[in-house]
This record gives sequence, C-alpha cells and structure tokens, in this order.
Amino acid sequence: MQKMNDLRTPALIVYKHKVEANCERMLKLAKDHGVTLKPHFKTTKCLEAAIMQTGGTKCGMEVSTLVEADLLAENGFENVIYAYPISPHKIPKCAELSEKLKSFVVFVDNVEALKALEQWKLKDNKNWQVLVEIDSGAGRSGVQIESPDAVSLIKEVVKCGNVSFSGLYSHCAHSYKCKNAEEIREVGKMTTNKMLTLVDELKKQGITCPSYGIGSTPSCSKPAPEMSKLTEWHPGNYVLYDVMQVKIGACEFDDIASFVLTRVIGHYTKGDDVFLVIDCGWTAISLHGVKDCEETSGYGLIVDHPELKLVHMSQEHGIVKSKDSSKALDLSRYPVDSFLRIYPYHSCATCAMHPVFYVADQNDNIIDHWRPVRGW
Amino acid sequence: MQKMNDLRTPALIVYKHKVEANCERMLKLAKDHGVTLKPHFKTTKCLEAAIMQTGGTKCGMEVSTLVEADLLAENGFENVIYAYPISPHKIPKCAELSEKLKSFVVFVDNVEALKALEQWKLKDNKNWQVLVEIDSGAGRSGVQIESPDAVSLIKEVVKCGNVSFSGLYSHCAHSYKCKNAEEIREVGKMTTNKMLTLVDELKKQGITCPSYGIGSTPSCSKPAPEMSKLTEWHPGNYVLYDVMQVKIGACEFDDIASFVLTRVIGHYTKGDDVFLVIDCGWTAISLHGVKDCEETSGYGLIVDHPELKLVHMSQEHGIVKSKDSSKALDLSRYPVDSFLRIYPYHSCATCAMHPVFYVADQNDNIIDHWRPVRGW
Repeated sequence: MQKMNDLRTPALIVYKHKVEANCERMLKLAKDHGVTLKPHFKTTKCLEAAIMQTGGTKCGMEVSTLVEADLLAENGFENVIYAYPISPHKIPKCAELSEKLKSFVVFVDNVEALKALEQWKLKDNKNWQVLVEIDSGAGRSGVQIESPDAVSLIKEVVKCGNVSFSGLYSHCAHSYKCKNAEEIREVGKMTTNKMLTLVDELKKQGITCPSYGIGSTPSCSKPAPEMSKLTEWHPGNYVLYDVMQVKIGACEFDDIASFVLTRVIGHYTKGDDVFLVIDCGWTAISLHGVKDCEETSGYGLIVDHPELKLVHMSQEHGIVKSKDSSKALDLSRYPVDSFLRIYPYHSCATCAMHPVFYVADQNDNIIDHWRPVRGW
Repeated sequence: MQKMNDLRTPALIVYKHKVEANCERMLKLAKDHGVTLKPHFKTTKCLEAAIMQTGGTKCGMEVSTLVEADLLAENGFENVIYAYPISPHKIPKCAELSEKLKSFVVFVDNVEALKALEQWKLKDNKNWQVLVEIDSGAGRSGVQIESPDAVSLIKEVVKCGNVSFSGLYSHCAHSYKCKNAEEIREVGKMTTNKMLTLVDELKKQGITCPSYGIGSTPSCSKPAPEMSKLTEWHPGNYVLYDVMQVKIGACEFDDIASFVLTRVIGHYTKGDDVFLVIDCGWTAISLHGVKDCEETSGYGLIVDHPELKLVHMSQEHGIVKSKDSSKALDLSRYPVDSFLRIYPYHSCATCAMHPVFYVADQNDNIIDHWRPVRGW
C-alpha cells in the first residue's frame, strides 16, 4: 500500500471520503428541494468524480470542454450537457456527440448560433437539444435576463426547425462576490425569482419551459428556499471546494477535499528576512488568489499552521513566511523534509496543474490514482 | 496536411522557425562570448525543444523537475543538471540518475543537504557532482553571494567525501525587474562581477572553481560584455520568449515563438458594456500577468490588434474589450468564428496548461505535435 508520506512532492491529494461526503450532501440538498442535480465536471475532469457526483447514475453531467464530453461519452454517460456557448466551428463535433448520445444538450445565447444549428441536419432526424443561456448578473455570455432579447430569442428557438427547446440555464457567477451564507441566499433568491418571472412570461406567451435551473457552488451549497421552485441545479466546484468557497461562505474548511502536499526543502535567513522554501511553486497550485494575497491567506491556506503564509511562488519554489510580519519564524519548527498541506485558493485551477490526483483514505493510504482529461 | 485554421480552439501554437532562430541566436551569443550554453528545459518540457536548445548535442540541459530529467535521460541526454536545491527526500531518485547518466549535477546551498549527500554512497564509487547555488539578489534559494557563508559552504563541499565540486550557479532573477536592455546589462555586469569576486576569493584560498555561470533569459539575451568572463550561461525562457520579456527589454515582439490561437465565440452589448467572448480562458493561457493587467496589456497581447485588451478570464471564457475605454468596440470587425492570436504574458505558465503544442511552419501548416512532460 502506497502511503501519502512516501509520495514525491509536490502532489495533489484528494480525500475520497470528503469527495463522497460533498457529493452525497449536494445530491441530498437537491433531492430535499425537489430539483434535479446536474453536476458540473469542470473541476476535476476525472471520470471517478463524475460517477460520484451523479450518485452512480451517470446521468446529467455538465461539461465545459468537448474532451470532457468525449471522456464521459466513452464511459457510459448517456446524458451530457455542453455548458458553453456554441459557435459555428464547434458544430460538427457537437453533431457527432448529439448523434452518438441519448441526449447531448448545447447552449445558445444568440440567433446567429441558432440559425447555424438549424442548418446542420442531424442523422436519424434527431433534433438539436438547446438550452438558452441566461445571464442573470454574471456579465459574461448569455442573454440578459431582464432584456426583451431573452423572450425573443426563446421564441426563435421554439419555432426553429431541427431544434428542441430544453429550457433555461443560468450560472449565477455573481454569487462569488458574497461573503456569507446570508448573502449567498439573497443572490440565490433574487436569481431564482428572476428566472421564475421569465418562465411565467414565457407561459403567458404559450411557451412551456421544460427545465430552468441556476448553478454555482455557493448558491447550491447554501440554497435559498425559493430555489425549490426551479427544476434543476448545476454546481461544480463543491466536489472539492476550496479556500475561495470558505471565504464566500459556501462551506467550512473541513469540507475542502483536496490539498497540495509539499515538503520544506530549505531554511533561509537573509538579513531580516526569515523564510522557508517549499517544493510547491505555481506549477503545483496555480497563481489564483494572487489578487487577495496581500490581505488574506495568500495563494492557499497552509493547513494547521495559521502562523504561516505562502507569500510568493516561482515555477517550482514557494516562499513561506510568518503571517505576522512582526514575529520572525522559528525555523526549527519546520524541519527540512517535513510536510505542509496547502488548501488551494481555487481548486479548479489547482486541479488543472496536475496530471495525477493521488486519492487517499482517512488513514492517508493512497488508494487510487485519478487522471484528469485535458485539452479542448 | 493539417492547417492551423482547422484546429479546434483554444490551441497553443509554436512557430518552429522562431524557436530555431531563438535557439541559434542564443547558441551564437554564448559562443561569441566564449561561454558554454547550459539551456534550461523548464519552459517547454518538450524533447524536441531540448534538442534544438542544445544545437543537437543533447549536452548540458538544465531541468527544474525530476520527470524532466527522466525524459532527457531516456532520450540520449547524458549530461543533465538538476537546477533545484536538493533535499533529503529527493536523494534516492537523484542517486539513480547520477548512477545512470554520464553526468548528473545537483544543487546544494546548505551544509545539511551536503552531509545527506555524503552519507549516500553512489554505485561504482561515483562521486556526487555538486553545484553550489548562489543567491546574487533573487532572494529565493541559494547562499548569499556576499555572505561569508558562501565561502565556508564551498570549503565544506570541496572537502566533503563522495562529492565533486562542479562550480557555482546563480539565477539572476532580479533581472526580471529591468525595463530595458541597458538595465539588463547593468544587472548582468553587477552579478558577473560579484561572481568573479567570489571566484577570486576562492582562488586565494586554494580552491579552483571548475565552472561559474549566471542565467536568466534577460541577462543572456542582452549580455553585458563582462559576462564573457563567466564559463557558462543558463537561460530558459528564450526558447519561446513572451510579453513579459518584451516589457523587460530582453526581446522584440517578433521573437515571441508561441501564441494561443482562439476564436471569437460571441458578441455582447450589455448596457454600456460592449465586448467579445473568446474561447480562451485561464485554462488556455493562465492568470499570469494579472497584477499588470490594469495598466498594460492584460494577461497577454492580442497580436495585430492594439485596440483590443483581454480584460478578464474565467475557466473557458475570455472577455475582450476596447483598450481605450472611451471608444466602444466595433463588433463587426471581429466576426464570430474569426481568429485572434494571443502572445502569452508568461510562456512558461502558458505551456504548463497545454497537453499538446501545435508546431507550425511559416505557412501555418501544422508540421508536428509536441507533448510536454508533466508532474514532478
């Protein structure tokens, strides 16, 4: 049995029992609210996680790239949602997946993309399945929720040939600006109410909305009661969580299911500067969090060491100093070769840096190796 | 023949002719200064690049990770330098490489690491080959150049059993703070002079220094005349260069040998906000440059479009706006599915995001696929 402490560092560790707990909790939250969970695959991109996220059903995963869709399609997932605005160049590949799978749903947020789909006939008279992407405040892609363009685009979708209207999808990314569960619930409530208003407006115009969901790990982790009126939720990051989610108020530190295992490789005293070097650079944890670095926890949180801060990274070196700059670090407390564990600031970004995830049990035995799919 | 414009985007493109030019120029610069080039592998981690960097000799590559060393060792590179401070946990693997290769050089910057090497006997009475890492101002690992610790550590190395003293190595990372060639040359000159002073001091004490080099792409790209007094240089990033190197003054935009190819996937007008969405998020180019984003070119430079700025990225979306916020973007100039090319702010970081590099000729034919090694 491989032990965690025998691994060459840096290494990304995933605690399987925490992933299981996060997946089960989110499935139960969705069930308790009477909505279908459509989990997002983008955080880990590992098949094993997708199976746990769907509670073993392999149904209804959402992906951010076509290679993720391929991986799922090759492994028995029959219902996949490509949660990304479709553009003409990607239509042939999406057609292949639409023809191969029982259900492959694409996103549309403008008439031009819709017309391009209409012109591409799928085999066996299959229809394109289209979710209309709604921008409920994220300010990225999607048609704005309160704009008349939303209703007019949906009308176009409904009357478009070769296309089936699957419903409405909104990623409430603005929930990432929250600072506690109360603020998260307020965003969830407001977003839900806006979505329901749009659904009602469509109903008045004779259009039935087969599904309407919002997502984001914060809003689904701390759901507003109103969110039970939706038909689906689609969070992703919750499978691992991270320091950013704790700061937002979406989870507790103990829910974070992955960390970078690193060793102290040197002690340095240079003038007044006293620091550790660890073998975790930005190749192991990413630079996400850099904007928050000065004021808070740096690029991640060093577990069980509130006195330490990861202040700087180069490609393979991390510089760790005393968080309280008035107190010099007692280097003898951190011998060379001793371990530190760093919770990622943004686990989606940290996962993207690792070709292998070392999956551990509660006794720090390495029980599996997960290999994420990469590329586009 | 695969054409660049048929690739699914985002894709990392490497212009082979530019890589060749960069490699040849650096080999010639080193030769003209009478020094040995010991190129660093960390930027691409692709075997094909290492062959070009060494001018086909496969001699004297430097690596930042042990998997890079393994890749080179398996492919006929007989002289590899592990340019990273050794710590006890990594000794067994380094011993394996030291025994396998004609020459495998490790870094030491403290007595404890040296003693750990002394205690690990290599097969066939081979000696450990040790470069002493010197901190000439980078403030990271390495023994400080003007500290008495430098001379005393080197004395320990010289008298240590099982160890051969290979020389001095300094990465003048402080050259990254420069803003033009003149400032770079000043750093190169000062660093060289400090190294030569140390070499002289050692000579006075009866210690001959077999090699003494400095590195960093800026200092070797714009070398101070004094750098001809060194025995070796060890730059890495020059193989591709990037926007950061242009800002430093190390190269011209035209020297940058890689870019992210991306397509426009949507046009958006939301209130006063007019923007393009492109299929290049942080998974394709990294968040490096975020600290410089506000004032300059964002996370990278959009080639041939000085009017555009990549202002924000999420995992798979990039938001491109008018650089001049007083001028609204004329969206019709950037049709959906049209291409943009983005020079990375930091090519080492961008390379780390891609499982495949698409290697192109001057006619934008894809003539090779390079696959970098990843992990540790």
